[in-house]
Amino acid sequence: MRALYCEEGDLSLRLDYPQPQPRPGEALLRLRMAGICGTDLALTRGYKDGVSLVLGHEYVADVISAPGHESWVGQRVVGEINTACGHCARCSRGLVTHCAERRVLGILDWDGALADTFLSPVANLYPVPANVSDEQAVFTEPLAAAYAVLRDMPSDAGERMVLFGDGRLGQLIARVLAAEGFDPLLVGRHAAKLAVAAAAGIRTQLVSSAAEIRSHAEYDVAIDATGSAQAINDILACLRPRGVLILKTTSAQTTRLDLAAVVVNELRIIGSRCGPFPQALAALAAGKVDPRPLISARYPLAQAEQAMRVAAQAESLKVLVIP
Amino acid sequence: MRALYCEEGDLSLRLDYPQPQPRPGEALLRLRMAGICGTDLALTRGYKDGVSLVLGHEYVADVISAPGHESWVGQRVVGEINTACGHCARCSRGLVTHCAERRVLGILDWDGALADTFLSPVANLYPVPANVSDEQAVFTEPLAAAYAVLRDMPSDAGERMVLFGDGRLGQLIARVLAAEGFDPLLVGRHAAKLAVAAAAGIRTQLVSSAAEIRSHAEYDVAIDATGSAQAINDILACLRPRGVLILKTTSAQTTRLDLAAVVVNELRIIGSRCGPFPQALAALAAGKVDPRPLISARYPLAQAEQAMRVAAQAESLKVLVIP
Repeated sequence: MRALYCEEGDLSLRLDYPQPQPRPGEALLRLRMAGICGTDLALTRGYKDGVSLVLGHEYVADVISAPGHESWVGQRVVGEINTACGHCARCSRGLVTHCAERRVLGILDWDGALADTFLSPVANLYPVPANVSDEQAVFTEPLAAAYAVLRDMPSDAGERMVLFGDGRLGQLIARVLAAEGFDPLLVGRHAAKLAVAAAAGIRTQLVSSAAEIRSHAEYDVAIDATGSAQAINDILACLRPRGVLILKTTSAQTTRLDLAAVVVNELRIIGSRCGPFPQALAALAAGKVDPRPLISARYPLAQAEQAMRVAAQAESLKVLVIP
Repeated sequence: MRALYCEEGDLSLRLDYPQPQPRPGEALLRLRMAGICGTDLALTRGYKDGVSLVLGHEYVADVISAPGHESWVGQRVVGEINTACGHCARCSRGLVTHCAERRVLGILDWDGALADTFLSPVANLYPVPANVSDEQAVFTEPLAAAYAVLRDMPSDAGERMVLFGDGRLGQLIARVLAAEGFDPLLVGRHAAKLAVAAAAGIRTQLVSSAAEIRSHAEYDVAIDATGSAQAINDILACLRPRGVLILKTTSAQTTRLDLAAVVVNELRIIGSRCGPFPQALAALAAGKVDPRPLISARYPLAQAEQAMRVAAQAESLKVLVIP
């Protein structure tokens, strides 16, 4: 079968990759549609050393087989991406997305969805409601990550929110915040991307310098979805005392941080990663969030390498891959 | 009068410093006892550029005069250190310790307590209960900063706590946590200081390397009171996913931080500074926390420069200055 393989950063579409065989508790899935994410691009740039696997963790697929769980066969599904052993200390205390033994679909020790077929633990699957199209459902994973911002926000955080980063994830977070009754300001460096957000009724501002970022002051909450490790000091400067920074950027680079400012202003920095699939699916089914304006391009799996190149371009938002 | 003056880092005991005159709303205080804090030492090392003022922000004193507030005259008091204008946007929303116009006793634009007399806003004063001695009361300000750790801890943080730094503030935080029903592990690099904590029933561990710090894993809460900007990556490695780092260190140095680890492990970093005086005074009055074993030395104000030198020695805990 075909699979987009990343071998320590080198990308190639393999045509004779072996079809995986599900073990008990696993489902064999046939891809319907996959999305390309910033993490996929980061993996090809060496975000994690020594990663060799099939990429892809945003998908909608059909269940082909599921030994011992035959009721799933034929269902159209999306799936969470972290495997959980169910018995380690972290799983026992409910931190299943942080399982000590975890593998991560298309990211860590588990072949991903950019292939004709792939595996998932059955426990990770969610049926897709009939009124949610493939082009909506394929956004479930990043939309759940966007909903994680609300889950991870302290209850006393306040309502004045500024969001940095007009890319894929920033666009979804802005829509989630708007859908849930907030009125965020989306700050970015790309006029065309900001226009996509503005068309959804989101307040936007184009900036071109760190000084312009720092001119936003006294926000209750700032959200970093820039994808850059370097913007954080400027973003922290936008917060009121006791303000909250929700950090979504994963970068291979370290950041030089002024911790005294964090202490003196009693700021809170909260790392936020994967989010709640049920909430994301419910938002799609109810039409609360429409991610489809984010689709920049569609490519067949045969052109998956080209899809990755296009996704890496600054003007791209979501690039989809369809078998 | 005498005053320990810091002129852009240069320290000298001035013998003819002008006695301050209280304006309405201010009290003139006569020092009974002052404590030397890590921030005092940092100011003499250039933590803040261009600081020229009388040092000292931990004190117990007698009210000499207080125009318009004569009932305070003769009272023995301690005092909060941040001035608040009462009408800026931050004060209006209750962030009075972060007043946009604030000055800070002995730290920022307000002469401190290491002098025969000094000023405080009357609004910052608290009477000292009769059963609290001067040697206890002088710890109110840092003890309040220690109580801030509990105030700033998220309610879902968990109970497994590790505390780094066996110095003045770390010692007080350990005592507060123990007094409030927790069982923290105090980790430090000084056997003699750890012995002081152990004598108060606190679990301690001597470490000498970053690897030993990192060997502490899966804590719910880590507290950084090391005073060093460099330990934070090692300390973050001690946390379970979604764990909380309470950051108390203010340092002039920046820190190179691995933000991807913060995001992937969904860690929470919370800056924590000044704390609740009423809670600290109540703990002293009830005997819940006894800070007196932390007293390393006592010096008369005439030897305040020597007191600062002794306070800077690695083996010192709290050095007191008495007129």
